[in-house]
Amino acid sequence: MRFFSDNTASASPEILDAMLAVNRGLEPAYGDDRWSQRLDRVFSEFFDTEVRVFTVATGTAANALALATVTPPYGAIFAHEDAHVVRDECGAPEFFAGGARIVTIPGPHGKVTVDGVARALESNPPSVHTVQPAALTLTQASELGTVYRCTEIAALAEIAHGHRLAVHMDGARFANAAVTLGCQPGAMTWRAGVDVLSFGATKNGAICAEAVVFFDLRRVADFELRRKRAGHLLSKSRYPAAQLLAYIESGVWRRNAQRTNQLALRIGAAAASRLLSPVEGNEVFIGLGDVAMRELRHAGFEFYDWGAERSGEARFVVSWDQPEEDIGALCAALSRPIAGVIPR
Amino acid sequence: MRFFSDNTASASPEILDAMLAVNRGLEPAYGDDRWSQRLDRVFSEFFDTEVRVFTVATGTAANALALATVTPPYGAIFAHEDAHVVRDECGAPEFFAGGARIVTIPGPHGKVTVDGVARALESNPPSVHTVQPAALTLTQASELGTVYRCTEIAALAEIAHGHRLAVHMDGARFANAAVTLGCQPGAMTWRAGVDVLSFGATKNGAICAEAVVFFDLRRVADFELRRKRAGHLLSKSRYPAAQLLAYIESGVWRRNAQRTNQLALRIGAAAASRLLSPVEGNEVFIGLGDVAMRELRHAGFEFYDWGAERSGEARFVVSWDQPEEDIGALCAALSRPIAGVIPR
Amino acid sequence: MRFFSDNTASASPEILDAMLAVNRGLEPAYGDDRWSQRLDRVFSEFFDTEVRVFTVATGTAANALALATVTPPYGAIFAHEDAHVVRDECGAPEFFAGGARIVTIPGPHGKVTVDGVARALESNPPSVHTVQPAALTLTQASELGTVYRCTEIAALAEIAHGHRLAVHMDGARFANAAVTLGCQPGAMTWRAGVDVLSFGATKNGAICAEAVVFFDLRRVADFELRRKRAGHLLSKSRYPAAQLLAYIESGVWRRNAQRTNQLALRIGAAAASRLLSPVEGNEVFIGLGDVAMRELRHAGFEFYDWGAERSGEARFVVSWDQPEEDIGALCAALSRPIAGVIPR
Amino acid sequence: MRFFSDNTASASPEILDAMLAVNRGLEPAYGDDRWSQRLDRVFSEFFDTEVRVFTVATGTAANALALATVTPPYGAIFAHEDAHVVRDECGAPEFFAGGARIVTIPGPHGKVTVDGVARALESNPPSVHTVQPAALTLTQASELGTVYRCTEIAALAEIAHGHRLAVHMDGARFANAAVTLGCQPGAMTWRAGVDVLSFGATKNGAICAEAVVFFDLRRVADFELRRKRAGHLLSKSRYPAAQLLAYIESGVWRRNAQRTNQLALRIGAAAASRLLSPVEGNEVFIGLGDVAMRELRHAGFEFYDWGAERSGEARFVVSWDQPEEDIGALCAALSRPIAGVIPR
Repeated sequence: MRFFSDNTASASPEILDAMLAVNRGLEPAYGDDRWSQRLDRVFSEFFDTEVRVFTVATGTAANALALATVTPPYGAIFAHEDAHVVRDECGAPEFFAGGARIVTIPGPHGKVTVDGVARALESNPPSVHTVQPAALTLTQASELGTVYRCTEIAALAEIAHGHRLAVHMDGARFANAAVTLGCQPGAMTWRAGVDVLSFGATKNGAICAEAVVFFDLRRVADFELRRKRAGHLLSKSRYPAAQLLAYIESGVWRRNAQRTNQLALRIGAAAASRLLSPVEGNEVFIGLGDVAMRELRHAGFEFYDWGAERSGEARFVVSWDQPEEDIGALCAALSRPIAGVIPR
Repeated sequence: MRFFSDNTASASPEILDAMLAVNRGLEPAYGDDRWSQRLDRVFSEFFDTEVRVFTVATGTAANALALATVTPPYGAIFAHEDAHVVRDECGAPEFFAGGARIVTIPGPHGKVTVDGVARALESNPPSVHTVQPAALTLTQASELGTVYRCTEIAALAEIAHGHRLAVHMDGARFANAAVTLGCQPGAMTWRAGVDVLSFGATKNGAICAEAVVFFDLRRVADFELRRKRAGHLLSKSRYPAAQLLAYIESGVWRRNAQRTNQLALRIGAAAASRLLSPVEGNEVFIGLGDVAMRELRHAGFEFYDWGAERSGEARFVVSWDQPEEDIGALCAALSRPIAGVIPR
Repeated sequence: MRFFSDNTASASPEILDAMLAVNRGLEPAYGDDRWSQRLDRVFSEFFDTEVRVFTVATGTAANALALATVTPPYGAIFAHEDAHVVRDECGAPEFFAGGARIVTIPGPHGKVTVDGVARALESNPPSVHTVQPAALTLTQASELGTVYRCTEIAALAEIAHGHRLAVHMDGARFANAAVTLGCQPGAMTWRAGVDVLSFGATKNGAICAEAVVFFDLRRVADFELRRKRAGHLLSKSRYPAAQLLAYIESGVWRRNAQRTNQLALRIGAAAASRLLSPVEGNEVFIGLGDVAMRELRHAGFEFYDWGAERSGEARFVVSWDQPEEDIGALCAALSRPIAGVIPR
Repeated sequence: MRFFSDNTASASPEILDAMLAVNRGLEPAYGDDRWSQRLDRVFSEFFDTEVRVFTVATGTAANALALATVTPPYGAIFAHEDAHVVRDECGAPEFFAGGARIVTIPGPHGKVTVDGVARALESNPPSVHTVQPAALTLTQASELGTVYRCTEIAALAEIAHGHRLAVHMDGARFANAAVTLGCQPGAMTWRAGVDVLSFGATKNGAICAEAVVFFDLRRVADFELRRKRAGHLLSKSRYPAAQLLAYIESGVWRRNAQRTNQLALRIGAAAASRLLSPVEGNEVFIGLGDVAMRELRHAGFEFYDWGAERSGEARFVVSWDQPEEDIGALCAALSRPIAGVIPR
């Protein structure tokens, strides 16, 4: 039973159907096809404001390209110390931004706080000898499965903008966060001050479809050239476009996120006393202890150790196509008294 | 009738079927799925030697990443002046290689010659003041639709290796070249001295499936980190892997290339007196003159102007799913006496 | 007798005196010293317009940093094919500009022409697939010792600006050109359309003092950070500042250039029938042939072969402290009938 | 009375004399002069092992270039959180290393500990998703004026090498540290495991003379090209070479460091109860409190606030040419009971 990652999921039927539907005849490439041409409009409606949307192949590319458009090579990007851009992208933001620096900020449950950002800014005053604060990136839902409230985002964007930092949101699990908050997608992005968004669909039911959404339209020309030069302007653009259109228009984004969030809550309930963070998306972090983790693995559950520094912490991620019985089995296993569980 | 590019093609049924077939259940990501795990073996058989294969999202990424693994930031990459890496990748090789330089070489019909390479090397003698010759890249089939013979590749690789240059092949249209030569894929690559290959499948029937194939296995570790950091390690790796496996194992690579090559030859025959280059793949370059080009466009044919410097030259590319009647119509139009055709 | 390069020269007494004069007591660093603070004013008078001046350690740094401020990473820099930025800087412009490309332009006697630039622009039309034309760099005096007339610069700047390219001048031998033209320094720079200048003093009498002069002041903030991050913000800034002030204010810039230009003309006169380019600065290029070059070397003259492609061409550079007798000896040797001289 | 920085110092007479002595006649450039040619030998004797030495213009360049030769673009450099490479170089290491990351390590008094390095390595386990640990850099003397003992360096190098990290030493104040330890320069470098050293002379009596010293000779070819391409291969190389030779051979390195260390100890003694770190070089860090700092400034003392996060902490740096009476005055001022001093 695989709880490794939502990257292990297959694609939703709606997504595959959409790809089959566009697989007819000769169509212009590089974004000039009929489906790509509809993306801006559909996403503008989705976000309830005028946006520009660009597809890329991976979330890493979305983040790194988006950040590169708002960060000079001598710039500093402020990020939570556990953010994907810090931990899991092999230095992609630094590469795409021509050598910029990520300044890490600690914060409870994977989220930065206004105080944390303020302290980081204070510790990095700009002078000709230092990297120049340029961007703040927020992960929604966060790397620890938690979700920023719209007011939290607005407060963080306020301090960022007050220091002339652009605000980027890593929305690899955007749908899970939006479902948790129950808000209009615009409310947790541009209305709260987000300038550019990495919008993920791959984890939540697509095959390979990530997008960068610009609310601040001034950076778009620069982005398009950076994307091409990074090898992320896909030639047969109808296919990623079709995935994104289906993802939004069929409502699969919401349906899948609703299911995974609910299943995650069930797991969370079964491990309530040992949760490391509140369950607000499709991820559950549990302080199980090494013995219990070994037992669970022996019983056929697959999941990641969380954190490099401490042992005994487990991450369970629910995929949109996770079999119902996996959840039942996991909840049952977690509910049993387990020898050696670390007390918290 | 679209003759713009083989990027306008749809995907072959075999490719879509393969994607549907793997779309079941939870599978490991990032290359740990069952299909990705088979890639090395299948490509090793295809090339008749041990290779390592890595999927990426685009041909631009394949070229730039492959070249970056064999070129230091202060290196020089030798390429035909009309090569895709020069003309159509927005500086991706320079970006990925950390600022390396492409030195262009002229040559008839899109191909560099041993003399051309020798002259370029002579004009760029290495010293501490200069960029250091590091790689030679060959496009097979070339940007002008021509094909290097295996002996030509071997001679070029010999001079390159003699100067300690790595040899890269841009095989965006590898299948078309292989079909034209009728040779084992290994014969026009590693047996002729190619160290690393960009292997294209997208243009010839896939959706989004390009690969970098290493014959020289020493660079592989470096490549994997560069790929990740460029956002080209696709998470749901089963899908590109399935495309590539189907592309090779079903023989669709050969079947599609055979069809497009033959159709291109028909077009070439209809415009024989005005061909700018021999037709050796699925592209036909014709010196039509501005008037004739206008007339053809008026008649519903879509194609690119070729070359920025001269007008009156047209590029026609045949897609694997090009309707038979498009070819007939184009041949008929080309065979008619056309007013204003430039004499050659 | 050394005619290798004006880099072999010592420093003028005025320069050393100036360094001794500032070598007293504790002074602010990083440009906050009294001498650095005067640079903008002195250079503004020199150029007869408001400028901002920044010292760097080498001409390579001056060129690469200046170009990086006006060229995005996906940009193209147009340069003569024999320019120092192309031939002798180990890819520094590409490095500093984050992977930008230099597009080379041929042209007689080391100079680009309006036609040459026009053709290069035509061959590199911007699209999302290509590098974006961003800058034109002119070398004054050129790599072949020739000098652009002010009207030539103005015409080149006009076409450059018409395509939104910034105009950079590599003035490693600025003084030699200014003396040849006999014009106000502003006339051959900003009045003719130059936006940013690499101003060299090292070759013409300083120890280590190069400057970047901005006529277009908008790029200055970006430049300062790039300079620091490249390790070219010198800590004990009073010393380079003192050199540059002495160089301008004592008139040593003109005196040295006048001497070297005149001596070069004498050499040119002695080899008149074999000159490869007109002598307009302190460099003389002569088609001597291999035999004569061997004989000259045997007679104790040191000089460079010119050009990697052809043999038999020699470059003689006159240094400001070149002994008078070196010139006499060289002229005598060149005037003798020499066996094996290549006819031109 | 200036205690800002040792960058405010003038040059020692020995240094200026050496520059005057080499200022005669035409000499080969770019390191081919007689003085540059002696550098390797003189430094090899100084360090009691075979080394290769390269001059550069600044300490920032020395650090960034040295680190770039031992760090791939996807690499991680481990450094103390207050190191110059982190705080004061505007991202130069990231730039020169093509986008590598600096991972910061806390540690008392400006020094990293074996435990700190171990924890940092544990928190950054290499996988294809992460930056790859590549180098450990140590600042000797540290940014807080403290000095690593040879056994400390050896222990740090052992853990670094055990994880295949190269060991770099930022020796901007190398002489101060060597004098404090009273050891042979080799003892605190290669014998303790240092692979490459930034050797500073500018702060301690030179004008503009920094060097990169390689104990591990394998990286030298790569370094030379990186230096050129960064604009740090100085043309008139006799002048920096003469400075470095005089610095070593005249013993000015030791004499100046002995004086500044002793004067710093006097200041430290006068502020003993408020020292933030032990005084082991030419820097003194004192917790004075805002009121006392204001009073001192009012009395004519110039110094930096230390630390961006806390107020009330002052840094005093003694220059080699600091007037004796400055020290007396400062000690007297520090010895007076000062209102508002923060208790520690």
